[in-house]
Amino acid sequence: MGPLEELVADLSRFPGMGRKSALRLAFYFLKTDQSFLAKLGHEIATLRERVRKCSRCGNYTETDPCSLCEDPSRDSRTLCVVEQVQDLMNLQKTGEYQGLYFVLHGVLAPLDGVGPQDLGLEKLVRRVVEERIEEVILATNPTLEGDTTALYIHKLLAAAEVRVTRLASGLPVGGDLEYADRLTIARSFQARRPLD
Amino acid sequence: MGPLEELVADLSRFPGMGRKSALRLAFYFLKTDQSFLAKLGHEIATLRERVRKCSRCGNYTETDPCSLCEDPSRDSRTLCVVEQVQDLMNLQKTGEYQGLYFVLHGVLAPLDGVGPQDLGLEKLVRRVVEERIEEVILATNPTLEGDTTALYIHKLLAAAEVRVTRLASGLPVGGDLEYADRLTIARSFQARRPLD
Repeated sequence: MGPLEELVADLSRFPGMGRKSALRLAFYFLKTDQSFLAKLGHEIATLRERVRKCSRCGNYTETDPCSLCEDPSRDSRTLCVVEQVQDLMNLQKTGEYQGLYFVLHGVLAPLDGVGPQDLGLEKLVRRVVEERIEEVILATNPTLEGDTTALYIHKLLAAAEVRVTRLASGLPVGGDLEYADRLTIARSFQARRPLD
Repeated sequence: MGPLEELVADLSRFPGMGRKSALRLAFYFLKTDQSFLAKLGHEIATLRERVRKCSRCGNYTETDPCSLCEDPSRDSRTLCVVEQVQDLMNLQKTGEYQGLYFVLHGVLAPLDGVGPQDLGLEKLVRRVVEERIEEVILATNPTLEGDTTALYIHKLLAAAEVRVTRLASGLPVGGDLEYADRLTIARSFQARRPLD
């Protein structure tokens, strides 16, 4: 296999990239300038040496602990549990939340062999107790796996004296009742609130 | 800008890749194994050193001349002119053509500053004369630019005693007259052939 075919085979491993797109990308590389390719190649090869998981919250970071954990202006009494770093980034973009984070890097999935130890749940409980967290916000996705994981964490935290909450689930803002699915509608009924 | 943001910015330069897809790809890298990243990074950084253009036909190759030019079983009397290496590969896949190639790596586009010298047309004419090519098949795309380029090459070759042909343009096999555009229908009328 020549270098071009080998590169195409490796590019095809990217998520959502078929052989045709990989070939197109490889041809784009062949036409782009060498300095960009050298820079990109180096960035990819050294990414995991330079970007690690924060030992405290699991966020991707260059420094350990990460800048969020080190920020004294953040509320250290609340801890928000998310599935992925992408979720953390999305929450951060809203500016709605000022506390600390805990990234699971997954959800409980017994069939895929993902158990509590893979998500660092022991560490989570220890952190809640040691740091005297007052509220744990479970922000896993409102999916079967996310709900199960949230429920499991809730039970784990029963002994710790901490308020455990879950992000509200319901109709998205700008959504349409006509196109909402049954479960979402059911949840927004159950969680309905009186108007002020 | 941290290494993650820098990588995302560079990945966003890929064709058809927005910021969101670039971020998704970067997160995929962060979860994949280091040996794959090191291999991929090296492949990208060294691609243009290892894969060059064949000095004879313009095909991408590790050896110069390329394996197609060096293949004695190919018919050295016909030369097929294509816009891109991708076109050459697609033609090769059909097995329909047994002659040699000339890759332009573009089309005439005066507004973008692409002139005859950028496509190596002098070299093409010299090759046709020196190698006593008997037929030049112009396989540029049936687009405005491709047609213009084909016409230009045709004129350039007027002095050389060589048969110049153009790939037939018409309804694609399995296509539908109902959905064909006007120009395609017009061309298939003009190029209609008697049934045997």
